[in-house]
Amino acid sequence: MSDKSVLDALEKKTSRRAFLRDGSVVALVAGVATSCKPDVNKAPAAAASGASASGQTGGTMGPNDTSAGAKTQSAADAMDAMHEKGIRAFPAKTSTMGNQLLKPKLENGVKVFELTAKKIQWETEPGRFVEAWAYNDQVPGPQIRVKEGDRVRVVVHNQLPESTVVHFHGLELPNDQDGVPFITQPPIKSGQSYTYEFTVPNSGSHMYHSHHNAAKQVGLGLLGAFLVEPKEPTQYDRADVDEVLVLNDGAHGYTFNGKSFPATQPIVAKLGQKVRIRFMNEGMMIHPMHLHGMHMTVIAKDGWPVPAPWRCDTLNVAPGERWDVIVNCTSPGTWAFHCHILPHAESEHGMFGMVTALVVQK
Amino acid sequence: MSDKSVLDALEKKTSRRAFLRDGSVVALVAGVATSCKPDVNKAPAAAASGASASGQTGGTMGPNDTSAGAKTQSAADAMDAMHEKGIRAFPAKTSTMGNQLLKPKLENGVKVFELTAKKIQWETEPGRFVEAWAYNDQVPGPQIRVKEGDRVRVVVHNQLPESTVVHFHGLELPNDQDGVPFITQPPIKSGQSYTYEFTVPNSGSHMYHSHHNAAKQVGLGLLGAFLVEPKEPTQYDRADVDEVLVLNDGAHGYTFNGKSFPATQPIVAKLGQKVRIRFMNEGMMIHPMHLHGMHMTVIAKDGWPVPAPWRCDTLNVAPGERWDVIVNCTSPGTWAFHCHILPHAESEHGMFGMVTALVVQK
Amino acid sequence: MSDKSVLDALEKKTSRRAFLRDGSVVALVAGVATSCKPDVNKAPAAAASGASASGQTGGTMGPNDTSAGAKTQSAADAMDAMHEKGIRAFPAKTSTMGNQLLKPKLENGVKVFELTAKKIQWETEPGRFVEAWAYNDQVPGPQIRVKEGDRVRVVVHNQLPESTVVHFHGLELPNDQDGVPFITQPPIKSGQSYTYEFTVPNSGSHMYHSHHNAAKQVGLGLLGAFLVEPKEPTQYDRADVDEVLVLNDGAHGYTFNGKSFPATQPIVAKLGQKVRIRFMNEGMMIHPMHLHGMHMTVIAKDGWPVPAPWRCDTLNVAPGERWDVIVNCTSPGTWAFHCHILPHAESEHGMFGMVTALVVQK
Repeated sequence: MSDKSVLDALEKKTSRRAFLRDGSVVALVAGVATSCKPDVNKAPAAAASGASASGQTGGTMGPNDTSAGAKTQSAADAMDAMHEKGIRAFPAKTSTMGNQLLKPKLENGVKVFELTAKKIQWETEPGRFVEAWAYNDQVPGPQIRVKEGDRVRVVVHNQLPESTVVHFHGLELPNDQDGVPFITQPPIKSGQSYTYEFTVPNSGSHMYHSHHNAAKQVGLGLLGAFLVEPKEPTQYDRADVDEVLVLNDGAHGYTFNGKSFPATQPIVAKLGQKVRIRFMNEGMMIHPMHLHGMHMTVIAKDGWPVPAPWRCDTLNVAPGERWDVIVNCTSPGTWAFHCHILPHAESEHGMFGMVTALVVQK
Repeated sequence: MSDKSVLDALEKKTSRRAFLRDGSVVALVAGVATSCKPDVNKAPAAAASGASASGQTGGTMGPNDTSAGAKTQSAADAMDAMHEKGIRAFPAKTSTMGNQLLKPKLENGVKVFELTAKKIQWETEPGRFVEAWAYNDQVPGPQIRVKEGDRVRVVVHNQLPESTVVHFHGLELPNDQDGVPFITQPPIKSGQSYTYEFTVPNSGSHMYHSHHNAAKQVGLGLLGAFLVEPKEPTQYDRADVDEVLVLNDGAHGYTFNGKSFPATQPIVAKLGQKVRIRFMNEGMMIHPMHLHGMHMTVIAKDGWPVPAPWRCDTLNVAPGERWDVIVNCTSPGTWAFHCHILPHAESEHGMFGMVTALVVQK
Repeated sequence: MSDKSVLDALEKKTSRRAFLRDGSVVALVAGVATSCKPDVNKAPAAAASGASASGQTGGTMGPNDTSAGAKTQSAADAMDAMHEKGIRAFPAKTSTMGNQLLKPKLENGVKVFELTAKKIQWETEPGRFVEAWAYNDQVPGPQIRVKEGDRVRVVVHNQLPESTVVHFHGLELPNDQDGVPFITQPPIKSGQSYTYEFTVPNSGSHMYHSHHNAAKQVGLGLLGAFLVEPKEPTQYDRADVDEVLVLNDGAHGYTFNGKSFPATQPIVAKLGQKVRIRFMNEGMMIHPMHLHGMHMTVIAKDGWPVPAPWRCDTLNVAPGERWDVIVNCTSPGTWAFHCHILPHAESEHGMFGMVTALVVQK
């Protein structure tokens, strides 16, 4: 499912009304937190009565200790308000989205993709614009999705102030299509175009990105997902929801798909659905991704099926790695989903950066 | 085995007398190092004679080169003395220990745990006190150990100067017990109490910690181990020794279970025993844990059994991850056990921070 | 295959003539990049014609956009020239190489290795000399290669200004051979010698290094590979090419086997050969190693066979870890091979540090 269709789905299915109906974020905020009053009617003792092995009872708030200094409480309330503001804003709208599916033109059976690299202003969260070097005005660049065995042509137009090249990270291409300047090709000078063409040799979750002055160019956004469907689809290729999550930590701050919380986009699924998430780290640091509420089953590493899928709730994704996981959405609700290096995800001002949610709808 | 019982065992079994009898640390220190004299009676040639495939001979020291400058040697000796001092002090006593088993109260079949979060002074090594935000005056907080299917109530009392919440990291709880402020519950204000209650859904090595202003609150100590025994015990659940090792690297420095070397506690086992170690990273950095002398067999990731256990001597533990390993104690002695990012474990002043030992007693 | 024999092979097989013949680096550089002229004769349309599922066509350069400012273009050209210079210099010669196979003396069936630790000047790339603390004047120290069950003696001579010890990282030795000062032995004082002797207990890719003041001593170069061939060789032990790649990031900068690009040494193989690479991280940071063009099959962790080999193109190697992989050389060419933390591998001045290549010759 492309990001666009997720957003459409999100617009349709997880409006504030839906959040309210699901009894998640806003209900609690409106009912309890905003008023800063504990729910004194639900005492702990009450919570215990009638509890069964399968039954679950919501948390209950005890009485307030009135001895807390008013000044400290005021500072603490101000902090809570900042935290609340971030959550309420999520998912925040920004002007444009990255990782949009790029439809190829078909020319004599060849799928032709055009990528134009240029400097843009990119909105990582509402009102925060940063300089980006982007493919087709997007960070990440547009998502390329093809099939094993496809003949593919990628035409790159360099409108940057310096040379660039494109490396197809993970694809086992002939050497002259590998995109390393002065080793496999000359650099693509500013103002020039260059054409890659190849038959897609291996399936899986791959990436394309600059391989020239790359610490800077990739850091500024010259990167994107290159997904290859296998000739023989597996059960995982028939997942109900299929999402790319590009992790980054460069000049744009801590981002998922080019956006920082609260402008990150949630993954949305229905109860019982299977969600495939394709983690891709385009940054300089590890990001151990932690999903709340349900585990992830790891099915592929760098596009290659793992011989024995294994389960986890925190998956360490290192720079250049791709990991594919399946989440079996067995539990409804809005589930926090974030990097577990906490300074990448939260400050005294609330959650930021590498935070999103998996929303499982009843 | 709880930390308390390990300590008891340690007191009984690995006193200085025992160390002496085992011919480890102190024997060498007293016999050789303190006097700064090489053992010239054991020549290399002698060591070789009679060596068989299974027989092993202790290291032997050759003659001293008297040409070394006296001044350099004096500085080097001073450095050695500092190194020796740390080793001699290990395991150093501090006023209180974290990760102590918390006995629940039973109320109508529900196991009830009380956690009080408050500011304390915490002794990370003898005489070094730091501000900690702690559960029940401990860092890590008290160890919670329950069984799959248990009904559990956790009552949290917030005596901190700001709001908090508790997230049960790794437990697949209903959404309203997930402990994320403004998403699954309101924050627990300073002075308030809050009750979580749930049926324990999945077994394994999990954690509980703050999920509000967490980069600060977890960094200061609001964290603990939440262990769930499976309904059907495996061979690993019958390990002779069962230890939690919480790794941290925040405001308190580099610590294992809230203590820095030489105040870290060794793991103690008898020759032939199987030791289970549950690594939990509550910090912001990776810690590749290296065990000397014997390998570790990895049996679980984030509480989930790995499909094919694998062996290693250095296990990279990323923030938020838990890894369970088994060590088959086949070789007697005091074995260094430390993070292999060397600046987390040693300075010119000797070993510090993330260093402990596995003591295998004959 | 020792580094020396690789170098010999490289001298013989991958001279500039061979690079030219293979149509890799220099051909492109000479034909296109140096002149800064796009190849306008090969239009994208031409590239598409006659393309089959298996056929591949080299990249083609479109026309230059003449609107780019001359000044910007000049700066960009200068940058390209620096990048090109680095590639052209690769593999750059330096005065001495580390990781050279150390032949033991045989004494009554014991393989005797002598290691002398002392301060030297080490050339990490042409003309860049750094202070190193080295075994036998090499960084990494000489490669020790023995067989499971061998009786081995290692005589260490300390000519450093301070004490040291040698720890055999990964070998399951008796405690008194473990090389931890004040725990298993006294430190080896400046000017002294010390003898380790043991029967090699377990096979695989291991290391030896200082375990005294180690953050400094290992950082300065007191480290080396200790390889143990198994009693019963597997298919992997019969790999056509067998290389050690020691990763480091300390006082000497980002290095592979003690050298920074362009002085790193390529791995050279023939089409169809199987290459075994033994990654060893002696640094303080992770290094996710990315191979272009072909995947790696992971066969061992810390010297222990993995129960189910798995494939990847980016392998995260943490400090203290060793990973063995097999590359099936199915695709000819010069393949970039580097750490994917981009600031460890490239700057605006070109590739540097943790970059090398796998050269697959037809």
